[in-house]
Amino acid sequence: MALVVQKYGGTSVGTVERIRNVARRVAKTYDEGNDVVVIVSAMAGETNRLVALTREICEFPNEREYDVVVSTGEQVTIGLLAMCLQSMGYAAKSYLGSQIPVRTDAVHAKARIDSIDDARVRHDLDAGSIIIVAGFQGIDPDGNITTLGRGGSDTSAVAMAAALKADVCEIYTDVDGVYTTDPRIVDNASKIEKISYDEMLEMASLGAKVLQIRSVEFAKKYGVVIHVRSSFNDHQGTLVTKEDADMETVLVSGIAYNKDEAKISVLGVPDKPGIASQLFTPLAHANITVDMIIQNVSSDGITDMTFTVPKGDYRKALQIVGESAREIGAAEVRSDEAISKISIIGVGMRSHSGVASKMFQVLAQEGVNIQMISTSEIKVSCIIDAKYTELAVRVLHEAFGLGAEDVQQE
Amino acid sequence: MALVVQKYGGTSVGTVERIRNVARRVAKTYDEGNDVVVIVSAMAGETNRLVALTREICEFPNEREYDVVVSTGEQVTIGLLAMCLQSMGYAAKSYLGSQIPVRTDAVHAKARIDSIDDARVRHDLDAGSIIIVAGFQGIDPDGNITTLGRGGSDTSAVAMAAALKADVCEIYTDVDGVYTTDPRIVDNASKIEKISYDEMLEMASLGAKVLQIRSVEFAKKYGVVIHVRSSFNDHQGTLVTKEDADMETVLVSGIAYNKDEAKISVLGVPDKPGIASQLFTPLAHANITVDMIIQNVSSDGITDMTFTVPKGDYRKALQIVGESAREIGAAEVRSDEAISKISIIGVGMRSHSGVASKMFQVLAQEGVNIQMISTSEIKVSCIIDAKYTELAVRVLHEAFGLGAEDVQQE
Repeated sequence: MALVVQKYGGTSVGTVERIRNVARRVAKTYDEGNDVVVIVSAMAGETNRLVALTREICEFPNEREYDVVVSTGEQVTIGLLAMCLQSMGYAAKSYLGSQIPVRTDAVHAKARIDSIDDARVRHDLDAGSIIIVAGFQGIDPDGNITTLGRGGSDTSAVAMAAALKADVCEIYTDVDGVYTTDPRIVDNASKIEKISYDEMLEMASLGAKVLQIRSVEFAKKYGVVIHVRSSFNDHQGTLVTKEDADMETVLVSGIAYNKDEAKISVLGVPDKPGIASQLFTPLAHANITVDMIIQNVSSDGITDMTFTVPKGDYRKALQIVGESAREIGAAEVRSDEAISKISIIGVGMRSHSGVASKMFQVLAQEGVNIQMISTSEIKVSCIIDAKYTELAVRVLHEAFGLGAEDVQQE
Repeated sequence: MALVVQKYGGTSVGTVERIRNVARRVAKTYDEGNDVVVIVSAMAGETNRLVALTREICEFPNEREYDVVVSTGEQVTIGLLAMCLQSMGYAAKSYLGSQIPVRTDAVHAKARIDSIDDARVRHDLDAGSIIIVAGFQGIDPDGNITTLGRGGSDTSAVAMAAALKADVCEIYTDVDGVYTTDPRIVDNASKIEKISYDEMLEMASLGAKVLQIRSVEFAKKYGVVIHVRSSFNDHQGTLVTKEDADMETVLVSGIAYNKDEAKISVLGVPDKPGIASQLFTPLAHANITVDMIIQNVSSDGITDMTFTVPKGDYRKALQIVGESAREIGAAEVRSDEAISKISIIGVGMRSHSGVASKMFQVLAQEGVNIQMISTSEIKVSCIIDAKYTELAVRVLHEAFGLGAEDVQQE
């Protein structure tokens, strides 16, 4: 007998019929002798409807009241799922974030979880009940409703699993698990059976949208084992867990790509202390997240600076950088929206050399020019021309033997 | 400067544009120097949508979870109204029933308010804030969400006004106030300026649907002055308040009618102790509310019993009564759905005789036969053939001088 936390996203509970399907899965897990705690999102489309209502009232709604409105989406789902289980003859009880309580800070619309009280849930579990908890929401120290921001239900689930010391946190989604790369690009992309937290974090932030980054950080911090799987079949999914010896034998676990960045270059910058700060501080003040930054070796006291920003902030960033460039006496600003970031990820890289050079070689063979490079212990990212994205993902996937037919071990 | 509690129903907050309209009214009251607490219902149609969702899940949803789902309707409205006021530059703050808290018993779907804590609201009022409170909902002693049943927002408003010792509780609706009778039947039905709690209770339970009965009972118990008025204009509405000398000079305040009852007669009943109990206990067990009951004087040890039940329970009642009638050896059961109850109401009746006989006389003059009569201190009700409903209302309205052109004083 185990304690299982399950999380079902908006698509999995998008209709009454799908809520029934979720109830059957939950009941099955319970019937197998497990204690079950279920975290649910709002029914698909509901959060968008509520957000649209707030925007109709005013462009920048007060965030406390925004949270009051949008948190109702999950509240409807927990009630419906609990009554569905009861109508099937199971003891089930719903909980709002405020009832658990899930305590958060007071940053409305993107609150962080401080603590979760497990007393009421544990009491009801001991009494044989299935517990249904509203994801995405909590309560601040003054008793105000808070929400965790989009996708926050994953974090709710992992935090609940941590608080209850659950054996596993199953995140149900509409795909079978985490894949070696995007199956829409590579036909034989294969499901990863086991992936480390760090790899998953790189995968998530590099464009694979299966799990919220914050939930993975939370899982890593508290050692929660996540099982990513589909709510539409019974296949074994992907385990996200702490690194083990097995994982290191795999050089590259996955290929990620991200087309949502744009590149800005400031050329002919006088190379003196404080230049980088003068360039990037105004961007930070404008809340623009700069991703990759590359500064060339200086020649004759003149250097170049290139960096990437989210495409959504591109126009604004360009304007800010234009002003900064004039102030610091830079020669020219160039920019390019048609770029893509391709990354190879794997904890095995730590102990094996030659992975990066193999990546560069593979791309070169296909005539793909590398514009920028950035590396960490467990990943290598290259900025390339956007039009080569699919080609690059395909040849790298092939070169590192990630296809479903291949077995890549050393 | 006064403390004003305002309640806006579902129609008044049915669209974003109407919520803006309500916000302007609230702001105006605040600008006039008043402390303002606003109670709102769910946007029109929203509660029905939520109830329909629960019925799709199962026919008889668990009531705890039903309350979790349907209470979200008011939650959305309070957030939207609060953010609307804030966007207009006013300090405003929303409260759920659980945040006030509004403490109720644990009878889900039709809870009764036990107490309201006024500390947080008073603190925020003192700080200059407009307070927006979700109607219809509360929290039971174990922290579960409860709802007060359909129309419960009126009761929320009156209870809040009582707790805060507000100067007035304004109930906004889509009509100008309480009328002497249904204006759809009588063209010159006139708005009542002031009506006593007891009269209003009779008006409400006899078919005038402006105010929830429970809210009037609550207002009477705690001496809350209710002002029923329209949210679409600035006309003075109807004050519902404790009886005063003025009111007694008015013989009849209003004419009510109710077409939602049916009549059942059990004829040839052996007149011995326990017969009434044998007839009505099974109906009570089936949760059927019996309204008027009339037992004729016995002749030769045989009597007749006639009573009315809600039309919705008519078939079921007829079946139950059929069985009971056989058991007690009654001769025959007759029934009639085509009936209507006409009532004249007025506290002046207490001190004036001849009101009932005038009613009978007026009906007789029009050839309307009276099938049953029931009286209380302040009302007389007659069951008549349904087809005479409008005629009876019109002639009684005329006879008691209730029209807008008339002034009825003694």
